[in-house]
Amino acid sequence: MLTGIKMVRPDNRIRFAWEIFVLVVIIWTIINIPVYVVFFSGSAEHSADITELILTIIFLIDILIRFNTAVIVKRKLITSRMEVLKIYLRGWFWIDLAATIPFWFILGGPGFAVTLQTLNLLRIARLLKLFRAVQTLRRARTSILLNPNIVRMVLLVFWILVTAHLVACGWIYIEGDIADVSNVKQYIMAFYWTITTLTTIGYGDITPKETIQMLYTICVEIIGAGLYGFIIGNIANLIANLDIARAQQREKIEKINTFMQYRNLPTDLQKKVNDYYNYIWETRRGYDETSVLHELPVSLKTNVSIFLNKEMIEKVPLFRGAGDALIRDIILNLEPVVYTPDDYVVKKGEMGYDMFFISRGTVDVVSEDEKIVYATLSAGHFFGEIALLLSTPRTATIKTREYCDLYRLNKDIFDRVLERYPVFAEKIKDMAEKRNMEIKSSK
Amino acid sequence: MLTGIKMVRPDNRIRFAWEIFVLVVIIWTIINIPVYVVFFSGSAEHSADITELILTIIFLIDILIRFNTAVIVKRKLITSRMEVLKIYLRGWFWIDLAATIPFWFILGGPGFAVTLQTLNLLRIARLLKLFRAVQTLRRARTSILLNPNIVRMVLLVFWILVTAHLVACGWIYIEGDIADVSNVKQYIMAFYWTITTLTTIGYGDITPKETIQMLYTICVEIIGAGLYGFIIGNIANLIANLDIARAQQREKIEKINTFMQYRNLPTDLQKKVNDYYNYIWETRRGYDETSVLHELPVSLKTNVSIFLNKEMIEKVPLFRGAGDALIRDIILNLEPVVYTPDDYVVKKGEMGYDMFFISRGTVDVVSEDEKIVYATLSAGHFFGEIALLLSTPRTATIKTREYCDLYRLNKDIFDRVLERYPVFAEKIKDMAEKRNMEIKSSK
Amino acid sequence: MLTGIKMVRPDNRIRFAWEIFVLVVIIWTIINIPVYVVFFSGSAEHSADITELILTIIFLIDILIRFNTAVIVKRKLITSRMEVLKIYLRGWFWIDLAATIPFWFILGGPGFAVTLQTLNLLRIARLLKLFRAVQTLRRARTSILLNPNIVRMVLLVFWILVTAHLVACGWIYIEGDIADVSNVKQYIMAFYWTITTLTTIGYGDITPKETIQMLYTICVEIIGAGLYGFIIGNIANLIANLDIARAQQREKIEKINTFMQYRNLPTDLQKKVNDYYNYIWETRRGYDETSVLHELPVSLKTNVSIFLNKEMIEKVPLFRGAGDALIRDIILNLEPVVYTPDDYVVKKGEMGYDMFFISRGTVDVVSEDEKIVYATLSAGHFFGEIALLLSTPRTATIKTREYCDLYRLNKDIFDRVLERYPVFAEKIKDMAEKRNMEIKSSK
Amino acid sequence: MLTGIKMVRPDNRIRFAWEIFVLVVIIWTIINIPVYVVFFSGSAEHSADITELILTIIFLIDILIRFNTAVIVKRKLITSRMEVLKIYLRGWFWIDLAATIPFWFILGGPGFAVTLQTLNLLRIARLLKLFRAVQTLRRARTSILLNPNIVRMVLLVFWILVTAHLVACGWIYIEGDIADVSNVKQYIMAFYWTITTLTTIGYGDITPKETIQMLYTICVEIIGAGLYGFIIGNIANLIANLDIARAQQREKIEKINTFMQYRNLPTDLQKKVNDYYNYIWETRRGYDETSVLHELPVSLKTNVSIFLNKEMIEKVPLFRGAGDALIRDIILNLEPVVYTPDDYVVKKGEMGYDMFFISRGTVDVVSEDEKIVYATLSAGHFFGEIALLLSTPRTATIKTREYCDLYRLNKDIFDRVLERYPVFAEKIKDMAEKRNMEIKSSK
Repeated sequence: MLTGIKMVRPDNRIRFAWEIFVLVVIIWTIINIPVYVVFFSGSAEHSADITELILTIIFLIDILIRFNTAVIVKRKLITSRMEVLKIYLRGWFWIDLAATIPFWFILGGPGFAVTLQTLNLLRIARLLKLFRAVQTLRRARTSILLNPNIVRMVLLVFWILVTAHLVACGWIYIEGDIADVSNVKQYIMAFYWTITTLTTIGYGDITPKETIQMLYTICVEIIGAGLYGFIIGNIANLIANLDIARAQQREKIEKINTFMQYRNLPTDLQKKVNDYYNYIWETRRGYDETSVLHELPVSLKTNVSIFLNKEMIEKVPLFRGAGDALIRDIILNLEPVVYTPDDYVVKKGEMGYDMFFISRGTVDVVSEDEKIVYATLSAGHFFGEIALLLSTPRTATIKTREYCDLYRLNKDIFDRVLERYPVFAEKIKDMAEKRNMEIKSSK
Repeated sequence: MLTGIKMVRPDNRIRFAWEIFVLVVIIWTIINIPVYVVFFSGSAEHSADITELILTIIFLIDILIRFNTAVIVKRKLITSRMEVLKIYLRGWFWIDLAATIPFWFILGGPGFAVTLQTLNLLRIARLLKLFRAVQTLRRARTSILLNPNIVRMVLLVFWILVTAHLVACGWIYIEGDIADVSNVKQYIMAFYWTITTLTTIGYGDITPKETIQMLYTICVEIIGAGLYGFIIGNIANLIANLDIARAQQREKIEKINTFMQYRNLPTDLQKKVNDYYNYIWETRRGYDETSVLHELPVSLKTNVSIFLNKEMIEKVPLFRGAGDALIRDIILNLEPVVYTPDDYVVKKGEMGYDMFFISRGTVDVVSEDEKIVYATLSAGHFFGEIALLLSTPRTATIKTREYCDLYRLNKDIFDRVLERYPVFAEKIKDMAEKRNMEIKSSK
Repeated sequence: MLTGIKMVRPDNRIRFAWEIFVLVVIIWTIINIPVYVVFFSGSAEHSADITELILTIIFLIDILIRFNTAVIVKRKLITSRMEVLKIYLRGWFWIDLAATIPFWFILGGPGFAVTLQTLNLLRIARLLKLFRAVQTLRRARTSILLNPNIVRMVLLVFWILVTAHLVACGWIYIEGDIADVSNVKQYIMAFYWTITTLTTIGYGDITPKETIQMLYTICVEIIGAGLYGFIIGNIANLIANLDIARAQQREKIEKINTFMQYRNLPTDLQKKVNDYYNYIWETRRGYDETSVLHELPVSLKTNVSIFLNKEMIEKVPLFRGAGDALIRDIILNLEPVVYTPDDYVVKKGEMGYDMFFISRGTVDVVSEDEKIVYATLSAGHFFGEIALLLSTPRTATIKTREYCDLYRLNKDIFDRVLERYPVFAEKIKDMAEKRNMEIKSSK
Repeated sequence: MLTGIKMVRPDNRIRFAWEIFVLVVIIWTIINIPVYVVFFSGSAEHSADITELILTIIFLIDILIRFNTAVIVKRKLITSRMEVLKIYLRGWFWIDLAATIPFWFILGGPGFAVTLQTLNLLRIARLLKLFRAVQTLRRARTSILLNPNIVRMVLLVFWILVTAHLVACGWIYIEGDIADVSNVKQYIMAFYWTITTLTTIGYGDITPKETIQMLYTICVEIIGAGLYGFIIGNIANLIANLDIARAQQREKIEKINTFMQYRNLPTDLQKKVNDYYNYIWETRRGYDETSVLHELPVSLKTNVSIFLNKEMIEKVPLFRGAGDALIRDIILNLEPVVYTPDDYVVKKGEMGYDMFFISRGTVDVVSEDEKIVYATLSAGHFFGEIALLLSTPRTATIKTREYCDLYRLNKDIFDRVLERYPVFAEKIKDMAEKRNMEIKSSK
């Protein structure tokens, strides 16, 4: 009959809600059961009956649901019931089972001479379900989309509180019930002692007197030392990870500054270099487009590059009539370059070998003596396209006004790309010849 | 009417002074208000009237100024009043507002049956302005020009003291006023308890007795553990960052020493290698010019290289008549090389393919048997320039006297650069032929 | 006579068992002797006689065995008895000897006026054998096959417990025997004090009263601070190492996200990029095949690549008749590429320059308008093989269905490989010409 | 007159001895003066007279010596007295001076109404000389030859002890002299309290009672927290640095194992790969010769390579008659390769393009079916030299017996080197042709 039911997908929404529900139940159990055991262990109160019944049912349902949930192993969805069963039975099933068995009813029934105290202690087995919570929570941790630093922080606090709660309950159990002190106060005192110990503060107002208490304290202290070390290690690691980009940037700046001081560069040049790093940091946290895109597979890289530059490229009259494939190849071969304010991108009279596209910032087209500003180009504009056709001296000087992100297209690279598109290459050649004749005739 | 006033630039000097003033006021508030609240909460003293009035006015002015200050978002200055308003209203405005409202006067006025104690407690809202200080201080932190390690250290101490002060005031509030102890002494005792707890020392001479005190202590202890971990993490991170260059250098040296021991290199060679690393460390903290300049955009790289080498290059008779562009391209293609003392840079009779420029150190021009020293060249000199014209055997041996930083210009690279300057290339070719004939005729 | 016995190899199984046995004996000694010394130092009990006898014999045998065990120095097995003797006598022999000498019997014998107490103290010399344990344990640590993080953790706990035990015994020795308290209780109290101090908790219920106790406590505290710092440092380092892959992946993702936000990429593209990183993380923890194999020497790289791809390559009709060497060279030149779902691997009509092999995932062969699916290829299939013969437009579009791991074989690289196999190159040329004529005739 | 004396070199041996002597005196001062001040501050004992006189004289001499010691600034020795004076007067002189002034005699003389207590307090100025010790010790730290980790550890302990001593003396001063307790005991108690506090143990048996004591304790606690954090940070950093090579190796191994598991490589291949990494780790701690030598300047690289390979190269008959320069160029172009046991370096019948030199390990020259072993070659031997002359099939199979470190000389690279040596190239060409004819005639 069971095989008739379809397997639930692990990303099913109801399934997910159940997971959260079970998590809440488990947390409730962890808080509740130890408290009940240490305080009401010997008393005749039977409110435990209902609790135990509900927990048994929920945990049973959970086991059933797990038997019917497909599993993902290495990005492959395993939906075969037999496979899922095998995987489950080989692992977590037994822990789930141990947490589900209602010792309370079985051993508490007639025919078993088990004291109420032992029965209560057996309820601790419910805490095994904690491992189930670990699994659910770990999934949150391994997810690469959530910020792992925050997830780690939250889980850390969660586990510390769970540990502290259990340690505090253990302390009360060993200490025994204190007369004249209410249960609430005794719990707070135990929790206070636990935290004081785990944080290695150790006021010493509550200390172990009996041998058994001392042994318990030794264990808690060793756990505390490890835990505390673990916390500090985690925090140190978090801080190191948070600042990885900043530390790298700092290192670069220190390098260049050491070098500049060693070679006695003039202060204004030093300032310019530092300002450049500042700009790079503010606008892109020190990351470089080429190296960032380098990581991506070719299809994504193409998508990203096309998104960034297609419009700009298609504006160029030179490329009119070029196919999508050629445009794409040109885009993939653009080289991002940064110019600082008042830089000369090209100088009049110099031979040109590159075409430029402006992605950010503005440049002035000026005469050789920089007195006349012919035009001001901004994002989306381009210049120097003749360099792709033939090597002639630049006809104007281009000077940046502010920090500019340009893309450079080198003639050699352009020619290499063209090789693969013989038809368009022919067209370009014609244009080049025509332009060449124009230049000659104009002389 | 408001729109008539011009927006203040965020880097305005008066604006900056105001920021510092507000920061001081906030710090004063943080110190003062909690102390006042815990000690004089129930008393009838009305010195608070003036304080509250002044704070309300200052904070109000601050809000107005912020409405009139342009904002920088991603290096773009936003001066439109509407835009600034929107950004402010979507964020910090509400916190600023909550800290500004004079509950003291509003609720303390007639018609409100609010006790003095509650009124005082409401004054704690002023502490919200702390977030404003965070913002101001963070700006100091994100600035890449200030040494972030020192800024971090100072801010860390500042925040620890603020936290300790607030915790101490909280402890006094929970403890209640102790008879027979002056307020000053009680505050010092509370502060002493706080620091003793936060540093996890926990003498235990002052411990919580009441449940509420225990709960407060638990919170402080958890904060303390986290804070302490955070401090240690920060310090560990600082130390790691401080020593990043040294650690890298050490690693390199260990690498090469492991290798040298594995291959049983003679000790004097091992010593020479170690001495070289020592030199590199002392003169440039292990950094390499090529890799350092590699990071810079082409315009800055050119500026730096030109500053370093132009004078040296222009001295070379060979390059007389070369244009600025060619000189620049040659400079960009110089390769820095280091020679250890008593090294042979070129040997008489060997074929030469490089020209050298001395940037640091001195070399001897010697005969083949090293008995005659023809000349001693030092920083600014060059040799081997014939190698750029034609491949002839070296005419003398060049031996270093000390550690030398040279620049090498390779013939192949020089030829590649020349390709772009056909006119000058022709000239060089002529010179080469002429020189060649001289050599032949001299044979 | 001794030289007649063959040297035992260090990896001999019986030898290894003996090592473990000695380790156990040493641990027993460390636990036992200090306890005996502090509690029964002055008593007349002579159960020590047997213990001492057994230890002397075991340690003596250990020395003899070591004299007969070959030693590995720099991967060379040294079996010469003389060499082994030299190495042993120059180092560990003296420590082993000091731990072996039975002071108990020698000085306790007639003619020596040594008190029982002094005799007992001299037994502490046995603890020198601890260094022997260090050696045995260090071997576990330097082994690169065991997970060093776990080994480190276990050894850390071991050394902490040994230290704590010795410190506790020292405390009892200084404190003297306490009346009315059993030895067990006194030991537990001392151990409790030690752990409380070493973990820097310091309850203060047991504190030094005498000057000598204070001095001892100062030493223990300094050791404790160092030890605790060492533990925390270790844990922090462990955490950093554990997460090295994750941190690197995270850094990459942050980089690309910073860039994408800076350039305002559309959210679906951003999502696609993040999903890609997720895929790379889940399937190969962010590692890239090329860079991973790059580390291997050529022979292993070949073995691994052949295992992965040989079957796939041999299926290709084009390569029928190619020798093993050529197949190997082709395999070594395959370039792994990843395609995201719904990517176009090749587009109909575009010129093709690469052949593809599917290693994982499925692709669809579709018509230009993507309406007709001609075929679906999966792992082990290949396509685009004509591109290796001649440059013709692709005859169909290939679109991925899911994440695909493909291998690309570029025509240029294929041609370069072929150069070395002139016979097969000739064959390929013939095929290309034949195919070319077919195409022409089909037009 | 002074100018007549020659400047002392900073590395002068007597100068160095003086430095050590002053360091010892300073340490003695740091220990002694605070103790004297806190215990005998008000007493009339005048043993201070002699101490003060001696210190004044020593410190005065020290100042004079420093005026006469040349200074190294950026590897340049500054011997000009004026320059040295300027540098000294601009910096450390004033601190040295303050520590040298004998307030004891000046203010203690007639005409000054200064109490003995104040006089004693002024002696604390001597502690300024501590900065001098810092300088001396820092030199030890910046030296790159000493293991910085050990130096750091030792200095750390030194500074902790100095700090603890000063803190303890401060505590005694604030506490006042305790009746019935000897000075020694009081000092030990204060030192015990200091260490207990600095290590954050805080037993609480000695706690501050007075306000002033509390304030002092707060300061000490904050210092303690910082100091402790600093220690832990240092230790964590040390551990991280110690294990940098191991961590990198581990990371590589994890990478490759992740990859191998992902691709389901057979276990014996996985084992082989892991064994290879083990070999690399054991023999060269994971470092790679090429990358290690890459760091060195060309002259050192040449020296190292020549040492390693010259003998081996000169044995090759092919290279007989080649000049030193050619041999050097060949050596610089050898590529180190590792082969695992039972690898085929060359296979009979395959085309050969490389010559091999054995640097470590042994290989067998075997027939194609591996049944006949023609020869066994070991370190210093070479094979495959014909490949450098012409491309013929290999005449035998070469199989490794164990891990082998070989050097490979590629034909293409060899040809490129030859281009620069036309005379020798001619000779090689002749040999190749001759050999070629032999082969043809032998067919």
